[in-house]
Amino acid sequence: MIATKGYAAQKAGEKLAAWDFERRDLGSNDVQFDILYCGVCHSDLHQIRDDWFKGIYPMVPGHEIVGRVAQVGDQVSKFKVGDLVGTGCMVDSCGHCESCQDGEEQYCAEGNIQTYNSVNKYTDGMPTYGGYSKTIVVKEEFVLRVPENLPLEATAPLLCAGITTYSPLRHWKVGKGTKLAVLGLGGLGHMAVKFGVAFGAEVTVLSTSEGKREDAKRLGAHHFIVTTDKEQFKAARRSFDFILDTVSAEHDIAAYMSLLKTNGTHICVGVPSKPAQIPPFSLIGGRNSLSGSSIGGIAETQEMLDFCGEHNIVSDVEVINIDYIDQAYERMEKNDVKYRFVIDLASL
Amino acid sequence: MIATKGYAAQKAGEKLAAWDFERRDLGSNDVQFDILYCGVCHSDLHQIRDDWFKGIYPMVPGHEIVGRVAQVGDQVSKFKVGDLVGTGCMVDSCGHCESCQDGEEQYCAEGNIQTYNSVNKYTDGMPTYGGYSKTIVVKEEFVLRVPENLPLEATAPLLCAGITTYSPLRHWKVGKGTKLAVLGLGGLGHMAVKFGVAFGAEVTVLSTSEGKREDAKRLGAHHFIVTTDKEQFKAARRSFDFILDTVSAEHDIAAYMSLLKTNGTHICVGVPSKPAQIPPFSLIGGRNSLSGSSIGGIAETQEMLDFCGEHNIVSDVEVINIDYIDQAYERMEKNDVKYRFVIDLASL
Repeated sequence: MIATKGYAAQKAGEKLAAWDFERRDLGSNDVQFDILYCGVCHSDLHQIRDDWFKGIYPMVPGHEIVGRVAQVGDQVSKFKVGDLVGTGCMVDSCGHCESCQDGEEQYCAEGNIQTYNSVNKYTDGMPTYGGYSKTIVVKEEFVLRVPENLPLEATAPLLCAGITTYSPLRHWKVGKGTKLAVLGLGGLGHMAVKFGVAFGAEVTVLSTSEGKREDAKRLGAHHFIVTTDKEQFKAARRSFDFILDTVSAEHDIAAYMSLLKTNGTHICVGVPSKPAQIPPFSLIGGRNSLSGSSIGGIAETQEMLDFCGEHNIVSDVEVINIDYIDQAYERMEKNDVKYRFVIDLASL
Repeated sequence: MIATKGYAAQKAGEKLAAWDFERRDLGSNDVQFDILYCGVCHSDLHQIRDDWFKGIYPMVPGHEIVGRVAQVGDQVSKFKVGDLVGTGCMVDSCGHCESCQDGEEQYCAEGNIQTYNSVNKYTDGMPTYGGYSKTIVVKEEFVLRVPENLPLEATAPLLCAGITTYSPLRHWKVGKGTKLAVLGLGGLGHMAVKFGVAFGAEVTVLSTSEGKREDAKRLGAHHFIVTTDKEQFKAARRSFDFILDTVSAEHDIAAYMSLLKTNGTHICVGVPSKPAQIPPFSLIGGRNSLSGSSIGGIAETQEMLDFCGEHNIVSDVEVINIDYIDQAYERMEKNDVKYRFVIDLASL
C-alpha cells in the first residue's frame, strides 16, 4: 500500500481535517500521480453532508484533480513518469454495458465508480478517496492527459465543471446559429459561457443578479437578462434553442422553459435536492424537452481538454491553501467565488 | 350566415344538448363540408368541464371531423364539391411566425385557432364550434384530404388520436431498431401501437391492466408488460429508447423514466391536470429527456392520412348516435371503449 495524507470528513456533516490513509499498490494498468491542484465542486459539500445518498466515511472529497505521474504499472502504455495528467469524477466502470461500449462510461448501467464516496468493486473492493490529498492511484483508462500550455491551477476545474458543460453542448450540437441561454453564472455557468462562445453560439446569461452583468460580458456572453425583472423576462419568451441550467438551488424550471423556442431543450446539469414540477403544457405547447446531462465520457473529456489547450480555455479560479477549505465552502454557498476555488496541494 | 345545428354545453360542466347556431358565410378561401362522423376525444370532456382553462360557452366540442365538401369559396383550388375531407384540432394560425413558416402550425407563437373553444381572430372574430354538428366552414389550408379507400367512421379519429401519435414517432425517428414502449392502451395508445409497428419499431405496451394483453397482441405489439407487477417492471429497467406516454390520468412519470435506456426520451402526449414531479437524477442519470408533443402540422397530418390510406391503418371505433354522448363520456372515463367513440352525425 502507498501511504498518503488527505483532508477528510470522518462523519456526515463533519468539518474536514487532515487524515493519514493509504492508496492501493500499483496494479499493472495503474498510474500513480502526485496531486498538484484539486478544484472544489459544490457537489463535494453535498456529499460530505449526505444530501444525496448515504455517504462512505471517512470521506476525502475532490474530483477535479491534476498532477504529475509518479509511477506507472508495467502494462501502462499511454503515460510515463513526469506526464501532466488529471482525473475527473470517475475512476472505473463495468466496461461492457452499452453505455461503456459507446464511450459513455458516465452512464454505465452498473453505475460508474466515482472518484470518491464509491466502493471500487473492480479493483480492491475498497472505498475510493478523492483529490484533497497528496497522491492517487487510477486505472490508466481513467487518466486524462492535461495540456502543458495552460495555467495548471485553472485546468483542474475542467475535469468536472468543464466537461459537465462541454458534453451537453456537444451532444446537442450547440454552435453557430444556436441561441443558448446559460442559467446561473457560477462554476459551471462560467464554463458554459466560455464553451458556448467558443462553439459559435449566441450566448445569453440568465441571472437573478444584476451584479453579474459585467462579468458575463467579460466572459464573452452576448446578452444578459436579469430574470427577476418581469419585463426582461417576458421579452425573452420563446427565444432560446437551449437553456443550459447550472443551478443546483431550488428554482422554477417550468417558468424558464417558457423562454424556449418550439423544439427547444432545457438541459439540467445542476442537481437541486427537490423534484422539478413540470406542467404538461410546458412540454406539449412547443414540443419542448427537459433533459439532463452528467459529466462526459473519458474520450470526450480528453477531447475537451485538448480543445481547451488549443483554444486557451481555462476556469477562472481562486487558489487556496487546504486549511482555508471551511471558509471556501461558506463562501461557495453564498456564491462568493469567481468562479472556482482550487486547492494548492503543496499546502497539505 | 349558414344555419346549422349541433350538440352544445351551454355552461361549464353542463350536459350536452341540441343547439341551433350559425356558421360564417363562405369566404373566398373557405370550404364548407357536411359532417358525416366526428370522433369523441377525452379532451372534449376536459374542455366542457373547464379543466384546463376558461372555456367559451355555448361550446360545441369535436375535433376529429370527416365529411364531404358541400361548397367552396371562389379562390379554393385544392377541393371541389363532393370531396371527402376532414379537419382536426385547429382551423387557423398566424401564418407568419417561425413555427407556422416551418409547417408546425400547432406550435404557432400566437397560439393556433382551435377547432372549438377558440375565438377566430383571423376571420370573423367569433367563437369556433366543433364537429358535433351538421356542417362546418374551414379555411382551405386547414382542410385535409381523406383517403376514399378506408372505412370513413374509423378515419375520423386519425385527425386527433392519429396525428398526435404519428407526429412524435416521426419527429423522433422511431422505426427499425427502435425499442418503443407505449404507455396506456386507449384512443391514443392503440394508434401509437399501430404506427409504431408500421414504422418497424419493436413495440411494448405498458399497461396497468392484464386484461389488455390479448388486444395489445392483436394490434401488433411485440411485448406486453403489466406495470403493477414489480418483477416485470424491474426486468424492463433501462430497456426502451422511447416511451410514448398517452396517459392523461395522474401517474408517476419519473418511475416510468427508469425504463429508458441512456439517451432515452419519455414523450408525453396525454395531458394530466397536475404537474409531473421529476427528480433531477431521472434526467441526469442517463441523459434522458422528458418531452411533449402536440398533434401535428397540417402538412404532416396530410402525410399521416395518406400513409394510413396506403397502409390500411384506421382507428378501432364504436359508432354511436349523438344522443348516446353522455353514456359515451361515462364509459370513456372508465376506459370502457375500444378504442374510440365516433358519432354518426346522421343521428343529429
